[in-house]
Amino acid sequence: MIKNAKNVKIFTGTSNVSLANKIVENLGIPMGQSEILRFADGEVLTKINETVRGCQVFVIQPTTEPVNESIMELLIFIDALKRASAKEITVVMPYYGYARQDRKASPREPITSKLVANLLTTAGATRIMTMDLHANQIQGFFDIPVDHFKALPLLARNFIEHGLKGDDVVVVSPDIGGVKRARELAKWLDCKIAIIDKRRPKPNMSEIMNIIGEVEGKTAIFIDDMIDTAGTITNGAQAIMDMGAVASYACCTHAVFSGPAMERLEASPLKKIIITDTIEIPEEKKISKIKILSVDKLFAEGIRRVIEYKSISELFEIKK
Amino acid sequence: MIKNAKNVKIFTGTSNVSLANKIVENLGIPMGQSEILRFADGEVLTKINETVRGCQVFVIQPTTEPVNESIMELLIFIDALKRASAKEITVVMPYYGYARQDRKASPREPITSKLVANLLTTAGATRIMTMDLHANQIQGFFDIPVDHFKALPLLARNFIEHGLKGDDVVVVSPDIGGVKRARELAKWLDCKIAIIDKRRPKPNMSEIMNIIGEVEGKTAIFIDDMIDTAGTITNGAQAIMDMGAVASYACCTHAVFSGPAMERLEASPLKKIIITDTIEIPEEKKISKIKILSVDKLFAEGIRRVIEYKSISELFEIKK
Amino acid sequence: MIKNAKNVKIFTGTSNVSLANKIVENLGIPMGQSEILRFADGEVLTKINETVRGCQVFVIQPTTEPVNESIMELLIFIDALKRASAKEITVVMPYYGYARQDRKASPREPITSKLVANLLTTAGATRIMTMDLHANQIQGFFDIPVDHFKALPLLARNFIEHGLKGDDVVVVSPDIGGVKRARELAKWLDCKIAIIDKRRPKPNMSEIMNIIGEVEGKTAIFIDDMIDTAGTITNGAQAIMDMGAVASYACCTHAVFSGPAMERLEASPLKKIIITDTIEIPEEKKISKIKILSVDKLFAEGIRRVIEYKSISELFEIKK
Amino acid sequence: MIKNAKNVKIFTGTSNVSLANKIVENLGIPMGQSEILRFADGEVLTKINETVRGCQVFVIQPTTEPVNESIMELLIFIDALKRASAKEITVVMPYYGYARQDRKASPREPITSKLVANLLTTAGATRIMTMDLHANQIQGFFDIPVDHFKALPLLARNFIEHGLKGDDVVVVSPDIGGVKRARELAKWLDCKIAIIDKRRPKPNMSEIMNIIGEVEGKTAIFIDDMIDTAGTITNGAQAIMDMGAVASYACCTHAVFSGPAMERLEASPLKKIIITDTIEIPEEKKISKIKILSVDKLFAEGIRRVIEYKSISELFEIKK
Amino acid sequence: MIKNAKNVKIFTGTSNVSLANKIVENLGIPMGQSEILRFADGEVLTKINETVRGCQVFVIQPTTEPVNESIMELLIFIDALKRASAKEITVVMPYYGYARQDRKASPREPITSKLVANLLTTAGATRIMTMDLHANQIQGFFDIPVDHFKALPLLARNFIEHGLKGDDVVVVSPDIGGVKRARELAKWLDCKIAIIDKRRPKPNMSEIMNIIGEVEGKTAIFIDDMIDTAGTITNGAQAIMDMGAVASYACCTHAVFSGPAMERLEASPLKKIIITDTIEIPEEKKISKIKILSVDKLFAEGIRRVIEYKSISELFEIKK
Amino acid sequence: MIKNAKNVKIFTGTSNVSLANKIVENLGIPMGQSEILRFADGEVLTKINETVRGCQVFVIQPTTEPVNESIMELLIFIDALKRASAKEITVVMPYYGYARQDRKASPREPITSKLVANLLTTAGATRIMTMDLHANQIQGFFDIPVDHFKALPLLARNFIEHGLKGDDVVVVSPDIGGVKRARELAKWLDCKIAIIDKRRPKPNMSEIMNIIGEVEGKTAIFIDDMIDTAGTITNGAQAIMDMGAVASYACCTHAVFSGPAMERLEASPLKKIIITDTIEIPEEKKISKIKILSVDKLFAEGIRRVIEYKSISELFEIKK
Repeated sequence: MIKNAKNVKIFTGTSNVSLANKIVENLGIPMGQSEILRFADGEVLTKINETVRGCQVFVIQPTTEPVNESIMELLIFIDALKRASAKEITVVMPYYGYARQDRKASPREPITSKLVANLLTTAGATRIMTMDLHANQIQGFFDIPVDHFKALPLLARNFIEHGLKGDDVVVVSPDIGGVKRARELAKWLDCKIAIIDKRRPKPNMSEIMNIIGEVEGKTAIFIDDMIDTAGTITNGAQAIMDMGAVASYACCTHAVFSGPAMERLEASPLKKIIITDTIEIPEEKKISKIKILSVDKLFAEGIRRVIEYKSISELFEIKK
Repeated sequence: MIKNAKNVKIFTGTSNVSLANKIVENLGIPMGQSEILRFADGEVLTKINETVRGCQVFVIQPTTEPVNESIMELLIFIDALKRASAKEITVVMPYYGYARQDRKASPREPITSKLVANLLTTAGATRIMTMDLHANQIQGFFDIPVDHFKALPLLARNFIEHGLKGDDVVVVSPDIGGVKRARELAKWLDCKIAIIDKRRPKPNMSEIMNIIGEVEGKTAIFIDDMIDTAGTITNGAQAIMDMGAVASYACCTHAVFSGPAMERLEASPLKKIIITDTIEIPEEKKISKIKILSVDKLFAEGIRRVIEYKSISELFEIKK
Repeated sequence: MIKNAKNVKIFTGTSNVSLANKIVENLGIPMGQSEILRFADGEVLTKINETVRGCQVFVIQPTTEPVNESIMELLIFIDALKRASAKEITVVMPYYGYARQDRKASPREPITSKLVANLLTTAGATRIMTMDLHANQIQGFFDIPVDHFKALPLLARNFIEHGLKGDDVVVVSPDIGGVKRARELAKWLDCKIAIIDKRRPKPNMSEIMNIIGEVEGKTAIFIDDMIDTAGTITNGAQAIMDMGAVASYACCTHAVFSGPAMERLEASPLKKIIITDTIEIPEEKKISKIKILSVDKLFAEGIRRVIEYKSISELFEIKK
Repeated sequence: MIKNAKNVKIFTGTSNVSLANKIVENLGIPMGQSEILRFADGEVLTKINETVRGCQVFVIQPTTEPVNESIMELLIFIDALKRASAKEITVVMPYYGYARQDRKASPREPITSKLVANLLTTAGATRIMTMDLHANQIQGFFDIPVDHFKALPLLARNFIEHGLKGDDVVVVSPDIGGVKRARELAKWLDCKIAIIDKRRPKPNMSEIMNIIGEVEGKTAIFIDDMIDTAGTITNGAQAIMDMGAVASYACCTHAVFSGPAMERLEASPLKKIIITDTIEIPEEKKISKIKILSVDKLFAEGIRRVIEYKSISELFEIKK
Repeated sequence: MIKNAKNVKIFTGTSNVSLANKIVENLGIPMGQSEILRFADGEVLTKINETVRGCQVFVIQPTTEPVNESIMELLIFIDALKRASAKEITVVMPYYGYARQDRKASPREPITSKLVANLLTTAGATRIMTMDLHANQIQGFFDIPVDHFKALPLLARNFIEHGLKGDDVVVVSPDIGGVKRARELAKWLDCKIAIIDKRRPKPNMSEIMNIIGEVEGKTAIFIDDMIDTAGTITNGAQAIMDMGAVASYACCTHAVFSGPAMERLEASPLKKIIITDTIEIPEEKKISKIKILSVDKLFAEGIRRVIEYKSISELFEIKK
Repeated sequence: MIKNAKNVKIFTGTSNVSLANKIVENLGIPMGQSEILRFADGEVLTKINETVRGCQVFVIQPTTEPVNESIMELLIFIDALKRASAKEITVVMPYYGYARQDRKASPREPITSKLVANLLTTAGATRIMTMDLHANQIQGFFDIPVDHFKALPLLARNFIEHGLKGDDVVVVSPDIGGVKRARELAKWLDCKIAIIDKRRPKPNMSEIMNIIGEVEGKTAIFIDDMIDTAGTITNGAQAIMDMGAVASYACCTHAVFSGPAMERLEASPLKKIIITDTIEIPEEKKISKIKILSVDKLFAEGIRRVIEYKSISELFEIKK
């Protein structure tokens, strides 16, 4: 039983209904009654079919593809809750779309990740729960509280259970930006790290893969926060194998899997790709190489702690 | 030549490029250099390829279908302009998506039209130019200036030129909500109005068309702010003809034309449907019954007046 | 007994003390102790004579004539409550002054209705309860929750009780803007509607009354949201009688009754004018033609539901 | 000729039209065309009859009695200007109503003076020009620039011209709160100060006048920021005369003159009361004892300096 | 036992730990666990070592010297609490640094006191508890509730207990600005007041002390809100003694005691200086002339009343 | 000559006056007249001694140690400018204090870097110019434009001029977080990178230095955004030398040099440390190993481009 649970309501948008259902099931709270209509001209209308007056409301909506639809749907849902006198509106976004657009990489670029933070706050969100943001700094894009979850313990325990740890293993960061994440996994697995550093020697030459660190004779485990078109990670896996690695695995939190991702993964030397269900994976993408771990219990427990006014950070203290 | 025009830049989003091109052509200002990229996972990136520092910038983007894409693209464009030190950002939205969701029609509904106003302001818009809002009150959803254009003189003059005016004509409002608009057109055409009032006599009976006002022996001209699925207007036209009207025409500002609209219009007794190009009409919808009037000159003249600090209201003083 | 009622306080401004008293009486909560002083130079000082620290506070103040005094008094009261640490401040405005100035009807006009919404929010209001806004869109002028009450069921039941319903009756909208309201009443009364459309044929000719719909031989019931100087409705009633109506009645929610209203109503063919007490009616205006229905129970029940976190919309589901 | 003056417009509200006219005359700029309508029910509508797009606009409106009307009228005027695309809106308030309600003097009081500052900013004011605020701290109630004018040099020079200065004169503060002002005038007049300290010895005894400082044989000059009901200053003048003063004068910036003020002043031993025209003085109050100095040139010069981007503080450097 | 006390947490910054400890001891609530680290480069990091999720939090931090360090430390602490989901954050500032910079005394000065109010609100404070602000108007610099405490009853009772009251005593304001405070103490002590008015006769002459009111043969009690460098008060004491006073005392709420303060006080004719502990007094400044009264019970009782939703004003009703 | 330069004023705070002087000298604009006073109790008062009305103002103030003093001084300066009617306030912060506190590294930590962004905006800053932020995402902490400068080209050219480039050289990142920066320098120097990865094998064992990449026989060049206590970089240099590097250099943008930094650098095997003058380096720290490159021309050119409405990004296009 959850303390303080009366006047708590949990709703889901349309982007990952199966995860949302698992979360409420774990909590033992019924899913809030709502409908999300799409008119012939593409406009969205949210219908909330039970009172939320004075309630602490959670809306589960990772902003996955189609990302702009997901975001607008979420904003409209929040607007409806705010006008219906909800007391608190916590947005549960296991996947935060546009997280990569978090700085101006070239002149006159938007910082869409900050824009989304501003839009959520303007619409009426009062707290955010999210997971493995592309950069930790995105927490600071908000002035409302952000509870930041980590899938890494989940992923790490999976490798440990399969005996993938110690000196025979090397954790590989597929690019320069992911080195910290690689090292964190390496701590769990008691192993070293390597880094793939793609570089174009001269403007008109093709990029070459430079591997920093030792991989020969080892089982390589790639880690990234998200796998999108899977080019970086599959090229990396090939390069690692070419350098004498004995096997390669990959893991990530957010399985975006867009464009040529599935073909590339299928064709790659990767033996297994461990992902989570922050993004709903359609049946046709559930190929045998893919193993999905659910984040449902983590989010259920997080929501429970928010309701009971307990610490969420305790959830993520390292216990190998 | 436009006064004050240095440091003025005009850009277009992707939703109605041909209208935008006509507007800048009318103004004699080159279109601002920008690209709008869509990644494999659906995320949008705007690239502005010339400096906007200290400039008065206009972005032309009616928020047409796919409406959520259009809105997010526009918000991202504005964010980029703001961070690139644009001095003023005027959003030119000939069509304002979600305008119909402007009040809570049933409990716990959003007011998406206000939400969109808040989102635009949060992103950084400093002025709005739009046309024929579904309700005039939407102007008040903003605390930044709104310049509100009217297509009615354009539409009215078209009928006058074809001799459709005077006592043989009746302007018909296809529903209760559009009576004011009908009366305004009737003033231009020196004729009377009629109203179609659909009503369901009892919960399980089908709706019946009740016509208030006289149509027998007259040429009926329907007017609405937008034609979406075209059900209301085509049913109305049939009813009017059944009541003895001699011919029927329709006109609207915003040709949303979603779902079964084209089939319905084609099959209807309507002889001609006069629309404007606030929404881009694809070639396959340009059937012979459809006549498109361009709002390009109106918006070009409006932008010119904003730049030259002149009154826009003078543009709309009635001169039959 | 009201649930959650401890820490609830209800205060009244000076504009409609008798309605406020009836509301608290219905609720069984004592009226909050306060004084509102007016100094010799016209400045207002509110004195709140009991603690409101941590309380959910309601302030009842329809912004009636003198409207500017009523608004400023209300804003000052809210400021005092906010600084005295009230937890929530719900403004109960049965009548919303300046509601008609809800759009720019001509260039460079204010949108005072939105201004008032902004002022209330700036002062510290956290929720609005109001009734029959001139336009539903005014709800969207706020970003705090608005509970919007309807007097129409009250008015309709009154006519039904007196047998005024069915085919012998016609509901008349006194102008083009009020057609929707007329149709809603007509649904309750199972009858048809008619509309009065005043129009000036040419600039220097006098306005003529054009009646759309049939009234001959029927009992006409006029409906409007407010009756101000009563010109429109009394001229309309005369025109309707001239067209052969057998009797005419009028009803409205807000009885502003300013300037020549009383003389006009007295002199008109209207047999009865049914109003509510959202605006306090002075004794001299309580002529025999006027019948006042109180909205006290509606507002009391609405406040009770806010306190108990229950749905308000259920209050207005149509039960003829 | 004023530099930068194109695109500058000056308007007046209704509260002190004669001062406003003198200001624009001094500046050689025509008064902006506008009307302020009051409907039968007390609602105000401002009509601005020339374009203000892109203009630097000044609105002259001291918020004098009826103070709530003056404030609302001003807020509505500002709202109209903002929506009509004025670039800057400077509010010229020679008298700031509610300035005395600038702190919580007893529990649960409003701080109306701050509320008014918030309302002006919310409506859209971008700068304030005002005079002799009751407390200097009110400048800090704003986060927009405040230009604070002083009438004291004007008043002081008047006394000096009449030879009222030096050891035969004493400046008297009518109460404890005005001592600083008294000392400032005393600096101009090279004389000493005295203070009247009213105190009630015990709860049920009447207040007694305690005079701190020497007045015997001297000409007393009272100074206050405003004279409202004139009780304090006329009682003070009597007390001072009773203590042996040879003559008494009074001066103030803001002549509120409400309630019994005129009778009290007429009956008092005060020989002359020097005031300014920040508040419009009706003919019947222009009794022979009253001398009015105009602040027109000061405000005209202040506005000129704002337009020309020059320092305003130089205007008030002491030059006896 | 405090009602509602669960979910209440009290923390202290580093500026007056001993007062904070006395306050929590009085309340019977344990001090919240936190650390405040200062890195080698001067940056501050606050560590809150227990959950504050959903709690009503109080942070005790008078912004004493080093004032900028104290303010930044406080702002950082508030930011951490806000992001950690504290429900309410009450800042308890017995001393408000920069209170004297509360208006523009000369052109282009900041109003730092307002700036600090804005910074606290921006960081996330939801209520302020403070004591004896330099000007009461500073309350209005905030739009969040301010509970304003007074040390005067504490100081007054101390003098009364020692028989210092009645006609043999005179309360002296050390300058023009403090007259109101002097009069308030004089009410408690049933005595008269005097004022020291320093003035520079001509630009290059030295300031002379002008005493308004009678002091000869009396025991003078100086009062000020704060004693900073102690120049004004010690010069004043000397002047008073020179004028024939028989003894002199001083009292203040805030003992800033900066620069030459201690030497001046030691060397002055003041027999005793009564202060409070709003500012922590280091051992070396606790000379025999100084008597410290603690404000611990007052603040403890104030916090208790905030928690229990009781009136704080009752705490300060005069009971001699 | 700078275009648009009239009405441009540049001021400096106290934290890096020599850099500020070099910047204005480069621009040929005189330094704005101002004083910054510190009172005995530590409070700061800024005095701006020339008019800034309507001006585009730049304030140069890297927020260096004492960082809290620097920040508060800057905020107060901005407040004064805002109240003095400056039109635009650009804060030029070559070093951004607290940049490392840009995310919650452990529970209940503040995000001080975002707090500082909020404080600057609240005070009134309208644009930020800064250099080499610890994380690029900090740009997104602002909603006002941020111009982000890079010192890397300056540092890189220095090494190239001394022949330190090509295969004999390796750029070393002193920790996992700085890999991107290392790679960027390596691009300029046409060489490879190595990374130092400190890790504690078990809770109670000491940290060991793990070097990823090859350094043997090479000249190592360390790069970091800032050198604070210099522990990481000097330990890294020792480890690199122990691994067989032939020489080691270091470079950074921000030379914080706090605590034991100078001793460590002096004692380290580093031959030269190349830094910039974003932070003022006191004479005693200018040891022979230290080489200072000035960023004066970069900032001067950046300011010039802001004034002339030109692109700043062009300044940083790679031209080896």
